[in-house]
Amino acid sequence: MSKQEFVVLGQDDAEGCCPALLTAPLDEGRAETLAKVFKALGDPVRLRLLSMIASRAGGEVCVCDLTPAFDLSQPTISHHLKLLKQAGLIDSERRGTWVYYRLLPQMTDRLAAILTRPAGQPLTETAPAGAAS
Amino acid sequence: MSKQEFVVLGQDDAEGCCPALLTAPLDEGRAETLAKVFKALGDPVRLRLLSMIASRAGGEVCVCDLTPAFDLSQPTISHHLKLLKQAGLIDSERRGTWVYYRLLPQMTDRLAAILTRPAGQPLTETAPAGAAS
Repeated sequence: MSKQEFVVLGQDDAEGCCPALLTAPLDEGRAETLAKVFKALGDPVRLRLLSMIASRAGGEVCVCDLTPAFDLSQPTISHHLKLLKQAGLIDSERRGTWVYYRLLPQMTDRLAAILTRPAGQPLTETAPAGAAS
Repeated sequence: MSKQEFVVLGQDDAEGCCPALLTAPLDEGRAETLAKVFKALGDPVRLRLLSMIASRAGGEVCVCDLTPAFDLSQPTISHHLKLLKQAGLIDSERRGTWVYYRLLPQMTDRLAAILTRPAGQPLTETAPAGAAS
């Protein structure tokens, strides 16, 4: 049984989906929760690990296939993977000697939804402020 | 003339859009660039500031209207706003006494696209690994 440490985003939202980010001021609690997920993504090694896991045909990657891509020790890689897992972005399963990782697409779907502008709502003009001055 | 310090994401991509995150391993350079943007989002005060700016009717907010929402000094708020601006998430314009901020939706659009799964490509199953063990 895998130990889940999900960050739960917006379970009590009206649409059961996502806290508003672009359409309403975020409250402190949700900002804290969401910031932890973005912080997990705010590191180049973790982004590379996530992309390697997410893009793998078959949906999962052995940690033994991740480590050689980096000039980092296995404990360091494992630490980064732990942070991605704690953020709810990936899950892991030990089978025999190795741990296998896979994307939890629910979380990336939620982040994508949070960052997507509502249809028909152009928030601002596209020209940079001051461009015409 | 506003001083732009945009992080440029994936301008040389085939579709002129976004570096792959979920469909192909991210290279080191792009991971560094993208991590800076996510790092800017990885703070609850900055997320709240971004949501206040993005959701404001009219599309821009005076810094004088942002500061009172926080138990933080104006220099601290200005520092957080500077980091959001350096990440290409917001822009600013000084008019008279005050600085006005607005969302740069191009960047949130790009992040949303990066985090969106390609159509018809269910990357993994939704049941947590180990749930059946």
